Amino acid sequence: MNVRARPTPEETADRILTAAEELFRRIGYTKTAIADIAHELGMSSANVYRYFPSKSAINEAICSRLLSEAHRRMDEIAARPLPASERLRDILLMLSDYNRACYTSERRMHDMVEAAMEENWGVIQAHLEYMVTTFARLIGEGVAAGEFRPQDDPVATAFTVKQACTCVLHPLMIAERIRHGMDQPGHAERLVNFAVNALKV
Amino acid sequence: MNVRARPTPEETADRILTAAEELFRRIGYTKTAIADIAHELGMSSANVYRYFPSKSAINEAICSRLLSEAHRRMDEIAARPLPASERLRDILLMLSDYNRACYTSERRMHDMVEAAMEENWGVIQAHLEYMVTTFARLIGEGVAAGEFRPQDDPVATAFTVKQACTCVLHPLMIAERIRHGMDQPGHAERLVNFAVNALKV
Repeated sequence: MNVRARPTPEETADRILTAAEELFRRIGYTKTAIADIAHELGMSSANVYRYFPSKSAINEAICSRLLSEAHRRMDEIAARPLPASERLRDILLMLSDYNRACYTSERRMHDMVEAAMEENWGVIQAHLEYMVTTFARLIGEGVAAGEFRPQDDPVATAFTVKQACTCVLHPLMIAERIRHGMDQPGHAERLVNFAVNALKV
Repeated sequence: MNVRARPTPEETADRILTAAEELFRRIGYTKTAIADIAHELGMSSANVYRYFPSKSAINEAICSRLLSEAHRRMDEIAARPLPASERLRDILLMLSDYNRACYTSERRMHDMVEAAMEENWGVIQAHLEYMVTTFARLIGEGVAAGEFRPQDDPVATAFTVKQACTCVLHPLMIAERIRHGMDQPGHAERLVNFAVNALKV
């Protein structure tokens, strides 16, 4: 008698994502077929399609998982008992490190991220909004504490801070800097400090 | 008797670049062959190859021309009898408009710019250095005039200012903003003002 319970649909979906992510990282998004993912799990392609209608949908779900983890880390830093300027700086540096880790340890991530930006813009958009909302909250707290200059529109300022850090946050820019040997230590910290100090009284 | 003088090699090279640029803009870099450029000029492909060893070399020369024009405009603004902060801001906004014009009026420029960034990095690198040198000079003038805070390393600060404006200067970022409807009026001005104001006393 089989003592292991049948996996729930959630568990199966999760196993598919984990196997797919591993293949995308190892052999690349473009070169991975649904059949490869199915083979890895000992199931049929038809069964994979029962959970995800396309490779693009699998990629979207993987990006969601990766970005949810980034949001969890942002929330954790935002809740620390530190001045708003320090929390904003630490969040920007964490995001820079988190995004950069995709490209240095995992060269194959490139086409996966590019595909997400082409095909799953909704997930990326939600991530950008999460960043701006978090930054705006911290800017508001910093203004209230007398750390930051008063802002007419904290959301617009938060958006500008995000834009100012594009060079160290955007996967395409990170990849370009690595490719051309311009990814020097201290660059991210310099840029983030420049952006956060620009807010100070 | 033919009264027109034979074109000089410089004139012929220039005609090739003008015809190639027009084709790259109209049908795209990838889809344009050397034979198309030659046909446009009523010459043989072999003759085009006498001037440029490859399509990539033609693209490099076109990029050089476009970037030289940007440098000419930078120099013109830098020489104006205005405070350094205004000249720095005007140069950043001019570069943002100049680069942006490539993508709004000329959708086909995309693969030409991408190819240049893949194949002709030397030209791009020289352009980045020209920007940093110009910004550093203006930052130095602004510090001397008591407009900007003293800087330990004006070149490093100039590099950071360039990085902070990546979102509105880098062709890939401009293209992404246009593609996703995020290219709102006022964004470039807000970001540039943020970066320049960060330098002020």
